[in-house]
Amino acid sequence: MTSNTLFHFAASHIYPPPQIQTLAGGADVSELHGVEILDGGKAVRLEWSDGMTARFHAVWLRDHALDPGTKAPGNGQRLITVLDIPGDTHIVAANITPDGGLALTFAPEDKPATFPADWLRTHRYDVAMPGGRGWTPHDIARWDSELAESIPTETYDAVRSDENALHRWLGAVRRYGFAKMTGMPAESGAICDVVELFGFVRETNYGRWFEVRSEIDPVNLAYTGLGLQVHTDNPYRDPVPTLQLLACLENSADGGDSVVVDGFKAAEILQQETPAHFDLLTAHAARFTYAGSADVHLSAKRPMIELGPDGELRAVRFNNRSAGPLTDIPFEAMADYYDAYRHFAEILERPDLKVSFKLRPGELFIVDNTRVMHGRNAYAGTGTRWLQGCYADKDGLLSKLAAGERRTKELQA
Amino acid sequence: MTSNTLFHFAASHIYPPPQIQTLAGGADVSELHGVEILDGGKAVRLEWSDGMTARFHAVWLRDHALDPGTKAPGNGQRLITVLDIPGDTHIVAANITPDGGLALTFAPEDKPATFPADWLRTHRYDVAMPGGRGWTPHDIARWDSELAESIPTETYDAVRSDENALHRWLGAVRRYGFAKMTGMPAESGAICDVVELFGFVRETNYGRWFEVRSEIDPVNLAYTGLGLQVHTDNPYRDPVPTLQLLACLENSADGGDSVVVDGFKAAEILQQETPAHFDLLTAHAARFTYAGSADVHLSAKRPMIELGPDGELRAVRFNNRSAGPLTDIPFEAMADYYDAYRHFAEILERPDLKVSFKLRPGELFIVDNTRVMHGRNAYAGTGTRWLQGCYADKDGLLSKLAAGERRTKELQA
Repeated sequence: MTSNTLFHFAASHIYPPPQIQTLAGGADVSELHGVEILDGGKAVRLEWSDGMTARFHAVWLRDHALDPGTKAPGNGQRLITVLDIPGDTHIVAANITPDGGLALTFAPEDKPATFPADWLRTHRYDVAMPGGRGWTPHDIARWDSELAESIPTETYDAVRSDENALHRWLGAVRRYGFAKMTGMPAESGAICDVVELFGFVRETNYGRWFEVRSEIDPVNLAYTGLGLQVHTDNPYRDPVPTLQLLACLENSADGGDSVVVDGFKAAEILQQETPAHFDLLTAHAARFTYAGSADVHLSAKRPMIELGPDGELRAVRFNNRSAGPLTDIPFEAMADYYDAYRHFAEILERPDLKVSFKLRPGELFIVDNTRVMHGRNAYAGTGTRWLQGCYADKDGLLSKLAAGERRTKELQA
Repeated sequence: MTSNTLFHFAASHIYPPPQIQTLAGGADVSELHGVEILDGGKAVRLEWSDGMTARFHAVWLRDHALDPGTKAPGNGQRLITVLDIPGDTHIVAANITPDGGLALTFAPEDKPATFPADWLRTHRYDVAMPGGRGWTPHDIARWDSELAESIPTETYDAVRSDENALHRWLGAVRRYGFAKMTGMPAESGAICDVVELFGFVRETNYGRWFEVRSEIDPVNLAYTGLGLQVHTDNPYRDPVPTLQLLACLENSADGGDSVVVDGFKAAEILQQETPAHFDLLTAHAARFTYAGSADVHLSAKRPMIELGPDGELRAVRFNNRSAGPLTDIPFEAMADYYDAYRHFAEILERPDLKVSFKLRPGELFIVDNTRVMHGRNAYAGTGTRWLQGCYADKDGLLSKLAAGERRTKELQA
C-alpha cells in the first residue's frame, strides 16, 4: 500500500463532505481587507482579501488574545481567567496592521492586542456549524468491505525507523480507526513496544497485555469452533480503552480469521434505513457489566451510539457478551429499542461491511475501540491460535501525530 | 473521622432524593404474588407480595435469561446475541414457582426459563425514570464547604491492612469525588503505591507520576506567589484521566493551601440560579489544548458540563490555562455562552463551596477529575512546596469497591 492509494480511497468516503469543515481551517488568506466595529464595540466584522467576512465578539477576542500577558509564550497556556476580563469589555479601536492583521484596543482595560489574519480565519466561528445528528469531522473516513483491497499497513521496521511511515500509520488509525502492522517479532509482550511508539499502555485487571489463546482440543470441537460476533472491547469500563491492539504469535488453526467492521459506517446505515432506530440507540443508555473473578466487578452505563451535544458521532459500544441488564430504557420504549438493537446487530453482520483477514505470526492490528468493532470467524482443526491483546488510548496517538504534522508544516513554511 | 460521621454528612446532601433510585434496587421482596400475560405474550405483568407491580417484555426476559445456555455460569457473560432471539418471541406460559419466582416458556423456541422474584424486582424498568437534566445517581452526594469539617480521611497503614478502611476510602471517592490520606511515606514515587491499592496508573507524556514543585526564589515573588484557579486536570486529553492524586513531600512555604470544589455542586447552583446558563454549557462543546513541548500536541472537544442522553450529569471540565479557541459555538450564542462561562467561574470562587487545607508531608488527596476541581492558594516565603501528582482511572477503583461490597453481602447472606 502506498499513501496514494490510502488517500484515493479516503477521498470517496469522506463524510460529511469536506467543504463543511475546511471552511474553518487551512485557508491561506493572510490579509484583512476591512474591519468594522459593531454593536457599540461588542463585536467586529472582518473582511479578508478574498471577500470572506466573519464577526467576532469583543469578549472572545480578549479571552483569546495572543500577547505574552494573556498566553504563556512557551506552552501557549492562558495566564488569565474569564473573571479577569471586565464584564463590559468592548472594542474602542480596530485597525488593519501593515501586514494585514488586526489591531484592537479593548476598554475599559485600555489594552491593545493584535491578531494575524490567518489565525483569525482559522478560528472564526461565525460560520454554518455542522448540522444534524451523527456527523463526523473531516479527518474521519467511514469505510466498508472495499477497504479490504487497501488495508492501511506498515512494517514494524518502517514505523520504527521512518517518521513518515509512523505518521502514515497513525494517520490511518485517526482516519479509519483501523490499521495493520507486519514484520513484528513474534515474541510475547512485543505488542507493548508498538504502543510505546505513539503512547502508553492502559493497564487493566487483565494486565499490561493479555493472552487470547485457545489450544484446540479435537474432543471439544463445539467449544473451539465458536466465532465471536463483532464487538467493542470492555464497554463495561468507563473510561473505555480507546485503542486495542491484537498481535499474532501463532495461527495454525483452520479459520479463525479476524473481522473488523466500521461502527460509524454501521451507525450511518442504521440512520439511513430507520432514523428512529438510530435515535433510540443514542437516546437511551445501555448497561455493560463484567464480574469474571472475585476481585472484579466492572460496570458502565453508556449508550450504544454516543453523540456529542452538537450531534457529532462520538462512540459506539456493542458487545453481546457483556451487555448488562437494560434498566434505563422506559417500558414504553423497550420494544422499539430491541428492534433498533436487533437492526444494528443485523447491519454489523452484513458481508459488505466486513473486512476479514487471517492474522499471521508477526502481524498485528489496531482498532479505535470507540468506533471499529472486531470479531473472529469460527475456527477448527488441530492447530494453535495464539494472540496477545493490549489496550492504549487515543490521546497519546493523536498528540504524537499532530505534533509530527506541526513539525512538517514548520519545515515547509 | 469515623464512617458514622461520613454517612451522617452524606444523608443530608444526597441529590436527587434517594427514593428516586432505591426503587430500582435493594428491595427485599423475594416472592411473586401474581403474573399475567399481556399483549398476546409480548409482555407479562408481575405483582410482588407487597402489591408492587411491573411489566416486562418477552424479548427482554429472553435476552436476560439466567440459564447456563444463555449466560456463562462462571463469569455471567451472555452466550447468545440478540440475533439468536427469534423476532416473534413471545411468552406462552407464565407461572409462579414454589419459591415465589417466575417460570416462563418462550415460543417459538419452546424454551423454559426461571427468574428469582428479587432479581426481577432489582432489574425492573417499568418505573419512573429520573427526569430532567443534571441529576446524579443515589451514590453521589454533592457537597460544599461544610465538608471541611468531616473530610473523608484514612491512614496509609489502615487502607493497606484493613479492607474495611480501604472500602471506606474508595466509597468516599465514589460518593464525594474526594478523599485524603495521611501517614504516607514522604518518598518520591510512593503515590503510585496508593494507586496500586485499587487500580492502575494512567501513564501519560508527563510520566507515571509528575513533579509539582516550585523552589521559591525570593527575587521572583511575583511568579512564585501565583495561585491556581480551581480546575480539572488535562481536559485536553480524551479520554481524560478520571482520577488524580496529589501527594505532598515538602510544604514549608507560607500559604499554598490546596483547594477543592465539587463541580457537580457548582453545576447545580448554576442551574438553580440561571437554567439557561447551565443549558449553554451543556449544549456546546469547548476546546482544550496543550502543546507544551515539541512532541506533544493534545486537544479535545468536549462540553464544560457533560450530560448523558437521559440528562444524567456525567462530567465537568474547567481549566482556564488550557481552554483552546472556542470555535464550536455559533456566533448567535457566543455572548450568552461567555455569560454562562463567567457565571460558572464566579460560582467556583465562592467561599461557601471551597474546602481548603494545607497538605503536609506524607499526606495525599485524590479527586474524581471528572467532577471535583482542585487549585491552590497563592504562596510565598522562603520554604519549599514539593508535591507529586499521578493519574489513574475510576473503572478500577469502582470495580474494587463493588467487588468488596459483593463479598461483604455474600458473607452476610
